Amino acid sequence: MNPSLQSELVLLPVAGVRLATAAAGIKKSANEDLLLIEIADHSQVAAVFTANRFAAAPVELCRQYLQEAKPRYLLINSGNANCGLGAAGLEAARICCESVASAAAVSLESVLPFSTGVIAEPLPAQKIVTAVPDLLKSLDSDQWVAGADAIRTTDTVAKGGSRVIDIDGVAVTITGICKGSGMIRPNMATMLAYIATDAAVADEVLQPLLNRAVGRSFNCISVDGDMSTNDACLLIATGKAGNPELGPEMAEPWRRFEQAVTELCTELAQLIVRDGEGATKFITIQVRGAAGDADARAVAEAVAHSPLVKTAFFASDANWGRILAAVGYAPIANLDINKVEIFLGDVCIVRNGARADEYEEAAGAAVMAQGDITLTIDLHSGDGRLDFWTCDLSYDYVRINAEYRT
Amino acid sequence: MNPSLQSELVLLPVAGVRLATAAAGIKKSANEDLLLIEIADHSQVAAVFTANRFAAAPVELCRQYLQEAKPRYLLINSGNANCGLGAAGLEAARICCESVASAAAVSLESVLPFSTGVIAEPLPAQKIVTAVPDLLKSLDSDQWVAGADAIRTTDTVAKGGSRVIDIDGVAVTITGICKGSGMIRPNMATMLAYIATDAAVADEVLQPLLNRAVGRSFNCISVDGDMSTNDACLLIATGKAGNPELGPEMAEPWRRFEQAVTELCTELAQLIVRDGEGATKFITIQVRGAAGDADARAVAEAVAHSPLVKTAFFASDANWGRILAAVGYAPIANLDINKVEIFLGDVCIVRNGARADEYEEAAGAAVMAQGDITLTIDLHSGDGRLDFWTCDLSYDYVRINAEYRT
Repeated sequence: MNPSLQSELVLLPVAGVRLATAAAGIKKSANEDLLLIEIADHSQVAAVFTANRFAAAPVELCRQYLQEAKPRYLLINSGNANCGLGAAGLEAARICCESVASAAAVSLESVLPFSTGVIAEPLPAQKIVTAVPDLLKSLDSDQWVAGADAIRTTDTVAKGGSRVIDIDGVAVTITGICKGSGMIRPNMATMLAYIATDAAVADEVLQPLLNRAVGRSFNCISVDGDMSTNDACLLIATGKAGNPELGPEMAEPWRRFEQAVTELCTELAQLIVRDGEGATKFITIQVRGAAGDADARAVAEAVAHSPLVKTAFFASDANWGRILAAVGYAPIANLDINKVEIFLGDVCIVRNGARADEYEEAAGAAVMAQGDITLTIDLHSGDGRLDFWTCDLSYDYVRINAEYRT
Repeated sequence: MNPSLQSELVLLPVAGVRLATAAAGIKKSANEDLLLIEIADHSQVAAVFTANRFAAAPVELCRQYLQEAKPRYLLINSGNANCGLGAAGLEAARICCESVASAAAVSLESVLPFSTGVIAEPLPAQKIVTAVPDLLKSLDSDQWVAGADAIRTTDTVAKGGSRVIDIDGVAVTITGICKGSGMIRPNMATMLAYIATDAAVADEVLQPLLNRAVGRSFNCISVDGDMSTNDACLLIATGKAGNPELGPEMAEPWRRFEQAVTELCTELAQLIVRDGEGATKFITIQVRGAAGDADARAVAEAVAHSPLVKTAFFASDANWGRILAAVGYAPIANLDINKVEIFLGDVCIVRNGARADEYEEAAGAAVMAQGDITLTIDLHSGDGRLDFWTCDLSYDYVRINAEYRT
């Protein structure tokens, strides 16, 4: 675990959202592995899911149900991903949703299923069904931290955050939780994240807002470059705060709301990287001066996915040749290597595509010794830019993933 | 080191090629780090180099010199890659070539420089210049094994191979050596490989033959997905065997010659993977039934580069969910997941995109326990196919690359 991880989590309740957790025996440990989130009627919900074509059964059901009803319940299990099991996986997820729907007297399609954990083992649906009645009885608005805890798999800490902003004199709360540590690669959404606000938000604008926020947060992180089959991120707006309805026509308040959501998503995304499997370093990659934002992303991803760069960070070795090599194979159309400039913290290590004249190894080593490191790569070829977050590759990453099923 | 690596290397001399090695003090150890290869006048030489835009100084000089003269000498050092040093790196490489050119009375451009080792540290050119006179005196046709040894960096064994084929009653020899263990990813050529034959080969056909052979051998391997800045592969044909000149119009003998070169390149490429940094398993990925060969390559690379798949192989864990997840994010246009079939050895683990009904964990575990494992992925969507070779990801990969400069 990265020492920079927060020690105590405090999360604010959101009017219109209640949560309950349980230990249903899906995990081999006795830890909690089930979370039910209740969403007040008439809430807005936006969602993004993995781009992996082998999407897990619950992701397939979510996509289908979202076409047919507004979500009222989210049923999330950890310990089993319910992925790669064909029709049996879909049926197991449906049975779990049905148990909530009948007990809560809502339609099947208003219950969304989510799973995370081991891929390709049958989901023990009966254990979940058995736990549902007690879950419904124990729903409470102050259970966000317990919820963040219940959705953990290899995560070493529970992850979440809250924001309060003022909208025309009304205090609006935004709270989010997420999980994720391995199989982390940006595409659409990364792992499980649930963000709720009591703000009133106009129809049709919540989904585009979530897409933009995810594009600058969850889609800008990588632990190991492996894209999950179960990624999902939901943004819920209950409208209970009593603020004037938010939409783009409100200009300044809308801008501040979008900024608060984006900042919270970024905070959650960074927590995932800080808790990356085996991570000992938190690395911010700032790409500047690319021909476009897509080029900036390609360079950031090449560097972030390079095992050689990642092991160099683990070793606190300012091996800038490996960074330069990764930039050199990034799939972008035009790269003028003679313009490339690279900074490690404030230290210029590469200028004009070669070792900077004034660079001294001791200065690079001093930056490398830190737990939080910023790497800036300037291509001096345009206005494209991206901030991206990743971690190092350590013995523990290998250990965690070699031992995962044993 | 993978236990399947050959224990004793026997390499046949090639008429028209002589070699000499030395310990010039470039490596921190006292091991040999310099190889000079002399090529008889009137030989044909074909070459491919890295696609990394941050190509090392010697690669830049090679590309330039090959435009201007036929190579007579190859001067190869290990221990320092001479990369990322701008004009100083080019000058250092030029000085080394100049020392051979003047002592051997050939043009500067007929001496090609090659370097491998640490990136971004100044090349000690004077140490090489000092060693050149003795190198020229000790050239011998029977020094291939010593040559393979002298170009090693993190390689745990010297790598090479020989073939003899009959061309119209004339015995033609093909011998090759290579090095490479980390920073291995297919693109154009991978690491350093030198292949020589005494066959007479027509002008203009050697380069296309090498391109095809590399496309099915060195470009089909991956250790860590990091593309080197110094990759180079040369094919030398001295014409000393006395065979009728080989070319496409000779049909059958030409086909057998190309097959022998391709097989030798494949053998060398596989030796690199077997000696992959920290590797304990040798994995053959056979992609079948893709819409085209390019799709087959995309799927093979996604699986071969996945840290989660690689750690599962290290743990001998038949975690087919990770394989399926990697197939699911391969960048190909159309993937019908319901057709995907995956075999581990002869054991069908996935059929119709989900766990095969008859699959039992014990059968998968039995295959996983082996050192050489074949993974077959059939997309059932066309005739595209590719064989690809990779290794697992172990603690030792992290150790080797964390400690490389310390």
